[in-house]
Amino acid sequence: MRSPVACSGDRVKVEGTWRRAIELAEDGRSVNVLDQARLPYQIAWRRLAVLAEVTAAIRDMTIRGAPLIGATAAYGLAIAMHADPSDAGLARAHAELGATRPTAINLRWALHRMHARLAPLAPSERAEAAFAEAARVCDEDVALCSAIGDHGELLIRAAAERAPGRPVQVLTHCNAGWLATVDWGTALAPIYKAHERGVALHVWVDETRPRNQGLLTAWELTQHGVPHTVIADNAGGHLMQRGMVDLCIVGTDRTTRTGDVCNKIGTYLKALAAHDNGVPFYVAAPSPSIDWTLDDGEAIPIEERGADEVRYVAGHLVVPLTSPVANPAFDVTPRRYVTGLITERGIAAASAEGLRVLFPEHAR
Amino acid sequence: MRSPVACSGDRVKVEGTWRRAIELAEDGRSVNVLDQARLPYQIAWRRLAVLAEVTAAIRDMTIRGAPLIGATAAYGLAIAMHADPSDAGLARAHAELGATRPTAINLRWALHRMHARLAPLAPSERAEAAFAEAARVCDEDVALCSAIGDHGELLIRAAAERAPGRPVQVLTHCNAGWLATVDWGTALAPIYKAHERGVALHVWVDETRPRNQGLLTAWELTQHGVPHTVIADNAGGHLMQRGMVDLCIVGTDRTTRTGDVCNKIGTYLKALAAHDNGVPFYVAAPSPSIDWTLDDGEAIPIEERGADEVRYVAGHLVVPLTSPVANPAFDVTPRRYVTGLITERGIAAASAEGLRVLFPEHAR
Repeated sequence: MRSPVACSGDRVKVEGTWRRAIELAEDGRSVNVLDQARLPYQIAWRRLAVLAEVTAAIRDMTIRGAPLIGATAAYGLAIAMHADPSDAGLARAHAELGATRPTAINLRWALHRMHARLAPLAPSERAEAAFAEAARVCDEDVALCSAIGDHGELLIRAAAERAPGRPVQVLTHCNAGWLATVDWGTALAPIYKAHERGVALHVWVDETRPRNQGLLTAWELTQHGVPHTVIADNAGGHLMQRGMVDLCIVGTDRTTRTGDVCNKIGTYLKALAAHDNGVPFYVAAPSPSIDWTLDDGEAIPIEERGADEVRYVAGHLVVPLTSPVANPAFDVTPRRYVTGLITERGIAAASAEGLRVLFPEHAR
Repeated sequence: MRSPVACSGDRVKVEGTWRRAIELAEDGRSVNVLDQARLPYQIAWRRLAVLAEVTAAIRDMTIRGAPLIGATAAYGLAIAMHADPSDAGLARAHAELGATRPTAINLRWALHRMHARLAPLAPSERAEAAFAEAARVCDEDVALCSAIGDHGELLIRAAAERAPGRPVQVLTHCNAGWLATVDWGTALAPIYKAHERGVALHVWVDETRPRNQGLLTAWELTQHGVPHTVIADNAGGHLMQRGMVDLCIVGTDRTTRTGDVCNKIGTYLKALAAHDNGVPFYVAAPSPSIDWTLDDGEAIPIEERGADEVRYVAGHLVVPLTSPVANPAFDVTPRRYVTGLITERGIAAASAEGLRVLFPEHAR
């Protein structure tokens, strides 16, 4: 991931240049984000300069991915503080950003962190402090993802040793790449690290209906030259039955303190197939994705998104019927189907005990 | 399914009129089929008058569904006999039709039956006998499906008794409706029978990427007024976890004598989710879909179809990347995940013994 040419920090390729998924704009009080609703059809950056633009960008999935939602919300609060740094302004921005999407816990984590930093300050100090804190959220996210990449790479190397003479076959669902974070990604970070360090691998990329975020993954992997193949969401179970998948790595929008994993709809089905076929199923879970208050994944709110996400594909109407459509956006994979959680501190068993060992400060 | 107005036999609705998915044309030597590659966008009938048109229609999925493939192949052989009833003509037509698609066993079943009927005859007698036999294949298919509907309806009624005061929730994958057969359908026949006899039900319709045959199911159900909701293939597991599915019913392209079920790609994932959540998983399997020669579903050839089926949706390019695409069209659900096989003779356990009880003539 490090550029062969001069660049600042861990940046990634967009048409050969190194970028982050969210960047502070030159004016120092707005941000530029890559418009993910247009990818892979068009590469377009969008400026977010006022709170309403930030909330809309999160809600309409101009940006998506739990860590990036958190980072964008942090900057959203900073942008709001520039306009109205009063206590009322802080409360309003916190509430509006918090209401954008219900499932990813990173959103609340980032807002809580920002609020805790800003509330004690005088209003006149808040904007500057908020932009500095949002920048720290982003830089820390890059470090978390990089560490996840290092830990997860070992899993891929281990799989390579079990399969000498051929590429390691990794299956992933949705997009948990750098587009879903600030840089590196969560599930894709181990893949990038392994690829760049010479481990031969190939990625099965689930299309991930209805929003086809698998195409974001395929686009990322294409930009980086990582071998991969796009498949319909229906295909992964069959591939596992035929021994064509060595391990699965996915991201998470919220993982309970007990290891239940909420992630993009359809993740659960792949975890079942992995379990049925003895394929290790790993979840890349940076600690801001972990909900230390929840014991049971069934308590996680599952966002129901609009029917048009199913009816239209890439702007084209594909369900021309009057038939109703349902569109739950996430599901919960019970911990018993999760081989391990790849955190920034190492690989944890998907259990309260497993997480407590690595994150004792969150132990109840 | 019976028309309130005068009609001949069990026919189904297309814009209010009762039709079969394949019909002998007025000239008595060609057939008309509903072009399923255009549905639900356009209702268009296509005339198949020469062998090459029949093989193309099967291969390009103008017609699809295991029972309808068998019926169409039967008429294909009849159409070929009209042009060249010689032994060589019979052998050539048999070979060309047999090579169209590899997975559905009904194709071979129908061709074997037609060949056994025609080979002993003088060439001059073959065309007339072939059209008569193809008509019998079709009429028998309607009877098989109707019987499956009657047996399967009891399962839906039983589910209704377990869930008083609300509609029975049925999940289906792909299209195993009348479009996939000659009339009635296999998996949908119990749904039509139950609906017409007043059982309140609602059908979750898997979109079924990459070819979206779920839209054929939604179109059928819309025409018949059966309540239903279209969902992405990723959603079914989540619905089962939340107790929103009472039973699954799917079709099959080939079921082994031991009860392993080959069906549209993604079926296996739904069977896993059903098993994990205690949801009964039934397969509607008319006997021509049963391969009495195979002990192990892994031996069933899985068709790999073209990448453009994934790249394009409804004629629109949705995967604009250079990324490779894989497209296995079927998977195999091991018998341990199948609650029962709904055959024309009743419901069999998914096992050699279960099938032997109902079909002793095939016992080894």
